[in-house]
Amino acid sequence: MSGPVAEAVSCGLLKYPAIMHTHGGRARAIESKDLRIDIAFIAAPTCDTYGNINGVEGKSACGSLGYAIPDAMYAERVVAITDNLVDYPACPIEISQEYVDYIVKVDAIGDPKGIVSGTTRITKDPVGLKIAKLAAQLIDESGLLKDGFSFQTGAGGTSLAVAAYVKDIMKRKNIKGSFAAGGITGYIVEMFEEGLFKTLFDVQCFDLKAVESYKNNKAHQGMSASMYGNPHNKGAVVNNLDVMILGATEIDTDFNVNVTTGSNGIIMGGSGGHSDTAAGAKLAIVVTQITKARLPIIVDRVTTVTTPGETIDAVVTERGIAINPKRKDLLERLKDSNLPIFTIEELKNMAERLTGVPEKIEFDERIVAVIEYRDGTVIDVVRQVR
Amino acid sequence: MSGPVAEAVSCGLLKYPAIMHTHGGRARAIESKDLRIDIAFIAAPTCDTYGNINGVEGKSACGSLGYAIPDAMYAERVVAITDNLVDYPACPIEISQEYVDYIVKVDAIGDPKGIVSGTTRITKDPVGLKIAKLAAQLIDESGLLKDGFSFQTGAGGTSLAVAAYVKDIMKRKNIKGSFAAGGITGYIVEMFEEGLFKTLFDVQCFDLKAVESYKNNKAHQGMSASMYGNPHNKGAVVNNLDVMILGATEIDTDFNVNVTTGSNGIIMGGSGGHSDTAAGAKLAIVVTQITKARLPIIVDRVTTVTTPGETIDAVVTERGIAINPKRKDLLERLKDSNLPIFTIEELKNMAERLTGVPEKIEFDERIVAVIEYRDGTVIDVVRQVR
Repeated sequence: MSGPVAEAVSCGLLKYPAIMHTHGGRARAIESKDLRIDIAFIAAPTCDTYGNINGVEGKSACGSLGYAIPDAMYAERVVAITDNLVDYPACPIEISQEYVDYIVKVDAIGDPKGIVSGTTRITKDPVGLKIAKLAAQLIDESGLLKDGFSFQTGAGGTSLAVAAYVKDIMKRKNIKGSFAAGGITGYIVEMFEEGLFKTLFDVQCFDLKAVESYKNNKAHQGMSASMYGNPHNKGAVVNNLDVMILGATEIDTDFNVNVTTGSNGIIMGGSGGHSDTAAGAKLAIVVTQITKARLPIIVDRVTTVTTPGETIDAVVTERGIAINPKRKDLLERLKDSNLPIFTIEELKNMAERLTGVPEKIEFDERIVAVIEYRDGTVIDVVRQVR
Repeated sequence: MSGPVAEAVSCGLLKYPAIMHTHGGRARAIESKDLRIDIAFIAAPTCDTYGNINGVEGKSACGSLGYAIPDAMYAERVVAITDNLVDYPACPIEISQEYVDYIVKVDAIGDPKGIVSGTTRITKDPVGLKIAKLAAQLIDESGLLKDGFSFQTGAGGTSLAVAAYVKDIMKRKNIKGSFAAGGITGYIVEMFEEGLFKTLFDVQCFDLKAVESYKNNKAHQGMSASMYGNPHNKGAVVNNLDVMILGATEIDTDFNVNVTTGSNGIIMGGSGGHSDTAAGAKLAIVVTQITKARLPIIVDRVTTVTTPGETIDAVVTERGIAINPKRKDLLERLKDSNLPIFTIEELKNMAERLTGVPEKIEFDERIVAVIEYRDGTVIDVVRQVR
């Protein structure tokens, strides 16, 4: 949920509160029947006349269909909507005819420009690069960066820059990783093609280079949202992550992260895989500038808890790094490090010295959205903006 | 069920009757929770340390794991047993870590000699070849053998010989089929590699040539038992079959087929995909000698109904062909054919003239096995042998 829809929800347009899931939590809710889907409409870049679907052929090819798989498997009725209806049988098959009731042919299922053409880009901003370099050094010093290393990062410019620095270290030290996961970007594909990872687990391709790789390289493997992050199946991919690079709109002194609401209190996005990967990864690192738009990012208490602090291991900013005090082992390992390590309170104070303490956002009492943690418990609510 | 186990069941060693499913019916029973599996033990030719399984790597590589998929997805607990435990993550993945609870490493999961090395063989028996040639001619005259043709045959020598004759016709007439399905043999792989089929749907590889092809050719696609033949999902592969070649131990004048019990009344096998493919295919052909071991194969009433006659379209023997009278359209199409077409009663009489009418097998009253049709209804029972 983002943009005008999220704004409408924040302004109270829904009769009942929206329920916001994580990627893995949504798969869990569907599989456990917490969330019953009457009809799923599935955009199919390619669909054959009996309902077999793939995302790699056709003018709207988008790669992995991982997020649609639980819906297809569990919805009462499944409608495939395609702009590339092909003779039976399609090949490959990502969503099987077993699950599809109806097929609707349309002229276009979406705007292919919505997928980044070519590859997603690394930041050129010197602050972002500084943060990324520090994060990569932290990963290196954590002891996790060795043969069998596994890694996930979002598609943001700073996150990708972390990948670039990690790549340099891996090449210099001749480290062969096991897998990279997540929404896959062209940059991660390059690392894979250079032999730095044995396989990729891809729930959604972020750019056309990733789509191409997913189509052609069998070690670039698809995964469903459940395989990716469902906490109640018999083992999700996130559980095997060594390092996850995360973003934040706010992070508080308990390391709780908000990626749900913006500085105006309005919903700006969902967790996505934020909470899932944070919970799974051995080292979940939030990378962020210490201030944004004259507001501190590190605060006493986040407006909305998206991801609980107990699952966040470190915050890396351009001014320094804070390690979650629960990670005594990591603090011990880093005790002789030259990295600029501070307490989270020290980072918060640095931020506030730059920006002052902003006024609290005021909300109405009415709840407009419920934030479900990945296991289905309620971790926070969002109230109507005034 | 076959061999000593089947014999023991027929002799009444089980306290309660055995319940015999078809391949698709078993998937249906599992998915509908008619059949609840407490623990599934899955032989895994390759398994990684987190439970991802494939059948294409390792010394016991057997190809498609289609029959194990419903068990893995629905059993309360799933134990992977492997003789090739590999680093995470395995690639490819046929059964996902989502479903696997435990992994047990053993020295050998089975005897690879159980899979035919090289390719399964076409019959050299002139009677079998005559039947096969007649069956291929019938297929040709049925009007189904054209571009988009789809086909399945078992691994028996006569069935494969039908494939060989069909192949000749397809090549001569430059026909491009859509798919072949089933347990896949090297012979079908050869047809696929020659471009006679666009893809293969493989639930189980019958020989090492099929294993090799399944591993290396992405258009040689796996399918689960449910995708193959479950009558209650949203569309099984059998539904799209044009022609299916079936065997029989007996067939009666109502076209009911027995592949469950032998001439001594003892259980000799299950339906496998017999009933599933017969129900799905547009033209389900039973190929059989008219007599075997001095017994007529075409009889008044089969000892056990495995597959109902309403789903069988034709019987082809070395003495002639019988078309199910329900298939008026097919009889009409063949009315000027030079094929040796008889009524099923005429074929039965030919058989009995050769062998005489055998004495009825005598059974005890006690039921030792219940034959479930693919939809879960009881189509017949097997009684204890005397």
